[in-house]
Amino acid sequence: MVVAKQSLEELCINSIRFLAIDAVEKAKSGHPGLPMGAAPMAFVLWDRIMRFNPKNPGWFNRDRFVLSAGHGCMLQYAMLYLTGYDGVTLDDIKNFRQWESKTPGHPENFMTPGVEITTGPLGQGIANAVGLAIAEAHLAAKYNKPDCTLVDHYTYVILGDGCNMEGISGEASSLAGHLGLGKIIALYDDNHISIDGSTDIAFTEDVSKRFEAYNWHVQHVPDGNTNLEAITEAIEKAKAVTDKPSMIKVTTTIGFGSPNKGNTAGIHGAALGGDEVKATRENLGWEHEPFHVPDDALNHMRKAVERGESSEAEWNQTLATYRSKYAEEAAEFERFLSGKLPEGWEKALPTYTPADKALATRKNSEMTLNALAPVVPELIGGSADLTHSNLTELKVSGNFQKGQYENRNLRFGVREHAMGAICNGIALHEAGLVPYGATFLVFTDYMRNAIRLSALSQAGVIFVMTHDSVGLGEDGPTHQPVEHVASLRMIPDLIVYRPADGNETSGAYKVALERAKGIGSSQKQTTLLALTRQGLPNLEGSSIENAAKGAYVLSDSDGTPDIILIGTGSEVSLCVDAADKLRGEGKKVRVVSMPSWEIFEDQDASYKESVLPKAVTKRVSVEAGTTFGWGRYAGSEENAIGVNRFGASAPGGEIMKKLGFTVDHVVSKAKEVLG
Amino acid sequence: MVVAKQSLEELCINSIRFLAIDAVEKAKSGHPGLPMGAAPMAFVLWDRIMRFNPKNPGWFNRDRFVLSAGHGCMLQYAMLYLTGYDGVTLDDIKNFRQWESKTPGHPENFMTPGVEITTGPLGQGIANAVGLAIAEAHLAAKYNKPDCTLVDHYTYVILGDGCNMEGISGEASSLAGHLGLGKIIALYDDNHISIDGSTDIAFTEDVSKRFEAYNWHVQHVPDGNTNLEAITEAIEKAKAVTDKPSMIKVTTTIGFGSPNKGNTAGIHGAALGGDEVKATRENLGWEHEPFHVPDDALNHMRKAVERGESSEAEWNQTLATYRSKYAEEAAEFERFLSGKLPEGWEKALPTYTPADKALATRKNSEMTLNALAPVVPELIGGSADLTHSNLTELKVSGNFQKGQYENRNLRFGVREHAMGAICNGIALHEAGLVPYGATFLVFTDYMRNAIRLSALSQAGVIFVMTHDSVGLGEDGPTHQPVEHVASLRMIPDLIVYRPADGNETSGAYKVALERAKGIGSSQKQTTLLALTRQGLPNLEGSSIENAAKGAYVLSDSDGTPDIILIGTGSEVSLCVDAADKLRGEGKKVRVVSMPSWEIFEDQDASYKESVLPKAVTKRVSVEAGTTFGWGRYAGSEENAIGVNRFGASAPGGEIMKKLGFTVDHVVSKAKEVLG
Repeated sequence: MVVAKQSLEELCINSIRFLAIDAVEKAKSGHPGLPMGAAPMAFVLWDRIMRFNPKNPGWFNRDRFVLSAGHGCMLQYAMLYLTGYDGVTLDDIKNFRQWESKTPGHPENFMTPGVEITTGPLGQGIANAVGLAIAEAHLAAKYNKPDCTLVDHYTYVILGDGCNMEGISGEASSLAGHLGLGKIIALYDDNHISIDGSTDIAFTEDVSKRFEAYNWHVQHVPDGNTNLEAITEAIEKAKAVTDKPSMIKVTTTIGFGSPNKGNTAGIHGAALGGDEVKATRENLGWEHEPFHVPDDALNHMRKAVERGESSEAEWNQTLATYRSKYAEEAAEFERFLSGKLPEGWEKALPTYTPADKALATRKNSEMTLNALAPVVPELIGGSADLTHSNLTELKVSGNFQKGQYENRNLRFGVREHAMGAICNGIALHEAGLVPYGATFLVFTDYMRNAIRLSALSQAGVIFVMTHDSVGLGEDGPTHQPVEHVASLRMIPDLIVYRPADGNETSGAYKVALERAKGIGSSQKQTTLLALTRQGLPNLEGSSIENAAKGAYVLSDSDGTPDIILIGTGSEVSLCVDAADKLRGEGKKVRVVSMPSWEIFEDQDASYKESVLPKAVTKRVSVEAGTTFGWGRYAGSEENAIGVNRFGASAPGGEIMKKLGFTVDHVVSKAKEVLG
Repeated sequence: MVVAKQSLEELCINSIRFLAIDAVEKAKSGHPGLPMGAAPMAFVLWDRIMRFNPKNPGWFNRDRFVLSAGHGCMLQYAMLYLTGYDGVTLDDIKNFRQWESKTPGHPENFMTPGVEITTGPLGQGIANAVGLAIAEAHLAAKYNKPDCTLVDHYTYVILGDGCNMEGISGEASSLAGHLGLGKIIALYDDNHISIDGSTDIAFTEDVSKRFEAYNWHVQHVPDGNTNLEAITEAIEKAKAVTDKPSMIKVTTTIGFGSPNKGNTAGIHGAALGGDEVKATRENLGWEHEPFHVPDDALNHMRKAVERGESSEAEWNQTLATYRSKYAEEAAEFERFLSGKLPEGWEKALPTYTPADKALATRKNSEMTLNALAPVVPELIGGSADLTHSNLTELKVSGNFQKGQYENRNLRFGVREHAMGAICNGIALHEAGLVPYGATFLVFTDYMRNAIRLSALSQAGVIFVMTHDSVGLGEDGPTHQPVEHVASLRMIPDLIVYRPADGNETSGAYKVALERAKGIGSSQKQTTLLALTRQGLPNLEGSSIENAAKGAYVLSDSDGTPDIILIGTGSEVSLCVDAADKLRGEGKKVRVVSMPSWEIFEDQDASYKESVLPKAVTKRVSVEAGTTFGWGRYAGSEENAIGVNRFGASAPGGEIMKKLGFTVDHVVSKAKEVLG
């Protein structure tokens, strides 16, 4: 097939294809197949459908785009370049997949202006998109007025067979259908090829029927390779359906245009190679040098700049009107966008004294969330079907449901992985919302990739994880975290807090909210709270300020201590009691409460030395989790009291005793270390 | 509603209900709602449908049962007791959820004879069931003869709304439909209640339609509370459909019989309380003491013993016939069941010398798998759509597909979480199969709970994880493991291997296969291999025997070393080169290769001291992953060279250099430590 004179649209679409082909060829690495096949739908989206301003990628009311099939990132980079984003130049494209380039191997929101969402791990993107759409629906319900529509944009997604095989996409899509999120429009690049070959070998379900079962509006474009009108019409129809999310199955040919590798897995994730690039150029009638975009195509695509500036100007007018009519709402909305927290918000944080009743830190968390809810209206979240165990309900609000999007209690269902990605999406909507998601700590295992991506993409989420140790009791080892707290501490840029009482829980929320906004840090950060099921006494010496330093001296003897007992969470009070006993025997004992390793590491050297003086080498740590890694503070893992086995089903108090979490054991360990 | 004289069946069913009610009441903890609602379907299954032998829970040809909704475990314990399993007595039931009891808070296969599968984390069980059915289908295709059916049993599952919300159940069910696994019969306890209340708040999809989309045979029993005939007929119909898995939606009332708490979330996960227990007794006309089962009911249910013994005797006759006709196959089949590996199998393991070409350890793994495949016919497995990246294809076999179940290459699709659980199911079928599952190491985050459950339930799986560090290159931080190896080492009872070359890869497989069978260990163990994308030289001094000790001295200077360099995987050769350089400068240097922490810890104290003498405190560790925890062997994390940040997209060699994995850096670190 030799194409005769190409239409302007063909010229644009082939420009996308060859930018991808040439970039992958130069890098000798990457995924050309998807961009070649999905170029037509991308062209339609960017040229005909989406509202965005290349000169201000952060314009609030832009449509959001998520490339859930993130390996096809050259598609996205090509679109950003062609439509005139300054952040992606032709040089950047030539630098595809190179050190510190703006065109990394998968889309990274923190590297590339115009990329909303970091994708690559399959299925995450469509779930992030549900979060983006929840954010839009919530803000629209909250701020729009009958005479002034301030919030009004769509979330577009391109996803592939791989995304649709992943469970997380099913979880998120089921919830999106339940919620009737009509502004999600997902284009399913149905090319029948995954890495292992034809989808015939592992994926023969009826995807459309499945999405109908989820209560989505489903359409099919049988010829996604050339029928731009059909794609356009399907998207317009999808926009007209406002009470259901839309899935458009767009049947395409992976690597369209490549005569020998198109429609094969061979073009999914490898450069075409010189001969096949040549053959593809011939086949598509493309006579241009590598990386050359014909002027006609570039000029046409760059009209996006003018469209975008005009869209934004129009919206700015709307905002001005809104401001004049609804000053209070506008002020809040603009504060949201500013990334600031409300003045004096932290005064709402509950404080406690030792005279206050012993409570589980999950209960302290509930009190904190509910104290903050009226003051920090950007808090929105919920639990994966454990609301009354995680204690995450905001009493000032109803449930976020179809037609009730102004509400702030999200009901995720038993869908932890989707919950994590949805929270990431809400945060990465970048309108100032601070999402939280809750489940049992052990089930971080179901959502670990979403937690990792939350940290990597600097989302700013709060994960509220309760039932944080074997102390949860009867549910047994399948429900008892052992390695979880430590394994989460390892995730770069993630903050983990395991507070010991009410004040520390408030302190943890203080840090979590600030970091979610990027306050006190060079970037937004996600925090994970590990909270107890069981009650804990309020400690003498704990405070919000202390907890916000990550670790601090809770109690001390005069002079240089003989030994330091370091505890976290439910084990700090054991350290306190053990210290009393040891002091009674004439030992000089310091107790350090260490709710957050990461925040403690963030403190300056002199503070760290003041808490854990290098000279005091006799140390014992106590934490009802693995001892793995405790050598860092205890000197050696052998000085750590912990749990290096699976738990067991029995009442929590009994398990804790059986596994050595008793004052006597801490005392005897301390004596052993003292020698 | 006061029930008049109860039929024998009602008596049996109410016995189940009250055993659950009374056990939860006594423990003041547990989940009575499911057993009360699902008692009728359980009665039908155990009394009318399933083949099993209570006096020999391990009888090979039994039907398998999985309680995917594991919180309802009192249902299962009640059935085991009532049908006459010696492992669960009335005293055990009275001891529900107590320390070391046989009736823990969720079903644990390692605690309770008759429990096939450890469940609790939702959605896992239905995916395990797919593994059980794959095992059955494979063995049936392999051993059955036109005149002798040796392998022929069903896999029954009870799952709930929670299981159906979890993505893993969708992944597994999609694959089961693709594979046409007709012997899975899943009963969906459709009670419209999850922990947070009515499923109306989060789960309104059409589950039946979704399963039809997966290509399952779907039926609905609208009255699962009383219509035993309808349940029975539906199961019989499901059995008649041999080319599709079957899902029977059985609509029930959670907590059936409880007048005030039935059909509410209040009965899902808490004891009824004295008053409601009384009201329920009255409502169901149950005049018996707590824990009393009427003789009529017990006598009836115990007929299972006779049925079971007769079923097993019949099958033993079949086996005898088979043995006489097909001696060779019978010998292999019986070896499978014995848990032994074939005589001399380890001779097939490839060995290498430094003269051999540098290969990626994923390539060594491919060679090992293919060398073992003809010798160890119980190896069966595959990849989650990364076959040619993970290099896991067995060239002696075709793909395991509908009608080709004799094959050993499983095509999991992009379904990592289901893959993990399916592998667990294949292993826990307990017929000697050794399953393996493969993906990129970073995607252990998608399947972490399945890996943990594999370790906890002593399954004996091999997880083959490739692309094990930032060294994988261009795919960037979303694909680059950093914390993964360390975070997996923390999981109790899991063995992690990160081999440095070909011999170590063979050694890792040696240990993995032995431990999968429980050889060299008190229990079956699961092993995870972390393998490189990039080529590694074959080291002087490596061997299968050395690798099988977890860590060993790879090279040494004469006399007591000044410093020990400890490396794993791709970083060992860096240590070797750095040692050469340091020795050139007169230092005495030992190089220790440490492919497996867990196996090294298993060695006796004198061996450990011989490798890492306590007296030699100057140590440096080198591993392209987090330094978290390396203090254990390096003395302090500060002596560890590693990666404590997210990776980046660039060619692998460049990233490794940028992040400090160079001989010069190891040398300078060593000098710094030497002081």
